[in-house]
Amino acid sequence: METGGMIDEASNMKVILKNYVSVSPQETDMHLTAGTIKLKAPTGSNTLVVKNLFLSCDPYMLFKMMKLESHYTQSYTPGSPITGYGVAKVLDSAHPDFEKDDLVWGITGWEEYSVITETNHLFKIQHTDVPLSYYAGILGMPGMTAYVGFYELCCPKKGENVFVSAASGAVGQLVGQFAKLEGCYVVGSAGSNEKVDLLKNKFGFDEAFNYKEEPDFSATLKRLFPQGIDIYFDNVGGKMLDAVLLNMRVHGRIALCGMISQYNLEQPEGLRNLTTIVSKQVRMQGYLVFDYYHLYPNYLQMILPKIRQTQVLYVEDIADGLENAAAALVGIFSGRNIGKQVVAVDCL
Amino acid sequence: METGGMIDEASNMKVILKNYVSVSPQETDMHLTAGTIKLKAPTGSNTLVVKNLFLSCDPYMLFKMMKLESHYTQSYTPGSPITGYGVAKVLDSAHPDFEKDDLVWGITGWEEYSVITETNHLFKIQHTDVPLSYYAGILGMPGMTAYVGFYELCCPKKGENVFVSAASGAVGQLVGQFAKLEGCYVVGSAGSNEKVDLLKNKFGFDEAFNYKEEPDFSATLKRLFPQGIDIYFDNVGGKMLDAVLLNMRVHGRIALCGMISQYNLEQPEGLRNLTTIVSKQVRMQGYLVFDYYHLYPNYLQMILPKIRQTQVLYVEDIADGLENAAAALVGIFSGRNIGKQVVAVDCL
Repeated sequence: METGGMIDEASNMKVILKNYVSVSPQETDMHLTAGTIKLKAPTGSNTLVVKNLFLSCDPYMLFKMMKLESHYTQSYTPGSPITGYGVAKVLDSAHPDFEKDDLVWGITGWEEYSVITETNHLFKIQHTDVPLSYYAGILGMPGMTAYVGFYELCCPKKGENVFVSAASGAVGQLVGQFAKLEGCYVVGSAGSNEKVDLLKNKFGFDEAFNYKEEPDFSATLKRLFPQGIDIYFDNVGGKMLDAVLLNMRVHGRIALCGMISQYNLEQPEGLRNLTTIVSKQVRMQGYLVFDYYHLYPNYLQMILPKIRQTQVLYVEDIADGLENAAAALVGIFSGRNIGKQVVAVDCL
Repeated sequence: METGGMIDEASNMKVILKNYVSVSPQETDMHLTAGTIKLKAPTGSNTLVVKNLFLSCDPYMLFKMMKLESHYTQSYTPGSPITGYGVAKVLDSAHPDFEKDDLVWGITGWEEYSVITETNHLFKIQHTDVPLSYYAGILGMPGMTAYVGFYELCCPKKGENVFVSAASGAVGQLVGQFAKLEGCYVVGSAGSNEKVDLLKNKFGFDEAFNYKEEPDFSATLKRLFPQGIDIYFDNVGGKMLDAVLLNMRVHGRIALCGMISQYNLEQPEGLRNLTTIVSKQVRMQGYLVFDYYHLYPNYLQMILPKIRQTQVLYVEDIADGLENAAAALVGIFSGRNIGKQVVAVDCL
């Protein structure tokens, strides 16, 4: 419904998905285009108009770029802006729970301004003494993913042996630090020597290795875990998961957070070591963070003091501007990023 | 130490493992031989001398017939009698907790008489109004395996969809009946039409199929579970498990009880559908029943009235005499048995 009076319109740059991708997304699968947007939320619409500040590049977005018949997440619409987690500022609100100048994180569009109609999983940001971009990472969905997977699913105990794959990524760097805080022995794998250095010298992992330089994952794990692995936080699936199975300790726990190594394959790799799940009495659990958002207040209470006291660090890889957003997103599937990949919508 | 007086000696037929087996055990890997045994337990030895009544043929015994470097179970010693679960009567006891004429179930030898030195997992049989052979099956280790896997690990809820493989076996037939008692929809797979008939017409499964007649397990499961599977009780692993993964429902649970389809293979089959564990948020757990024996009194309390009121049935395949024991044991790996395979030591 048109309301009377002036409607402020603004130009609005958007990152558009051209067509569904099949396997490996390319920068050219997206393009930047200019549009316009009305900066007023129609009265009674329960919607918000926001200015996007930071956008999060997350592995699950690949599934939305594909045309999948049945999946937990709906595909994007080619010709429309892609969507994802982000940090934004409310410019106008027709929703009783939000007002102008509120800062929020949740699902928004890859564009300068968005109209948000789905506010169920939109969180108001209350603490601004930490970098706002953190709400796309350590204080947002990836942080909750690390928290839930490690604490709720893996139930760590002091002195246990923890292995994390994709360990310098948005989630992995946190799991490793959480494990150290709990008094565990922690090893991480990553895809470059620079990342391995980060794990050992910044995040305090006990050991780390570049999986690209290890021909036999199982032998590597046996060397680093002579007593076996109690907890495996899996971000990659495939061969690494299969090698871990051979090295699990009795009553081990595996959290399956996502299998990025499998996302670019026509056919997933076959895992042959499942029988050890029985003999070692392992619990393996897949999860999606959405089911656990009710725990967000608990997580904030735990993590904010640790961030302020630099007991937990967070490394971000911030791409400047929407013009670099497509490259940033594509980059996470080849491991180009170091730390959590974020896009700053305006060059700050 | 020799005690004074007469020592009763008896002749003792034994089933001996000749040599370690590599993959598929044959009847000729064992042989029957005669020995003698002293029927008196030396004072202070904490041992028992028992007369074996029933011996249980269980899939895990294959691992003990192999020379495995690291496994949860120790290999047999070639030239010695094989061991396993059984039902026995105490002839003489030098252990304070047991006395002559007690009936027990637990680990014993494949022979007429055994000296039992390890009494930690030996259970005294208190209820003899049910067939004694049941203590090698529904009232013994297989019964506890079904109980623990289904109730403790799968946490069934009324109306859920349950799939059981090797469903007419020692464990599967119980899981299916437990699931029906809980108000679930239950489908079982088995390896012959006779077994399928048993599932549908004796155990009350809602549906059952002969996996040997189904070329595409995933299509079969999709047909029988149009809404997906909430609980999968896996006794077989391999291709069936991989097909189940494609058909799991969100928040599904899988108990991995053993992977008999993989035991005879040089290399296990590769599973390709692990990624659905993440997207469907599935929990998959391997277990060994030994950790749960503290729950045995709870189980007995639940199951005994149900047996007496014929609310739960149990089908056994009883081989007569030690001379048929090797064939009975080998038969379970090709599915020759119908129901729980037991050996009656004396022809009764």
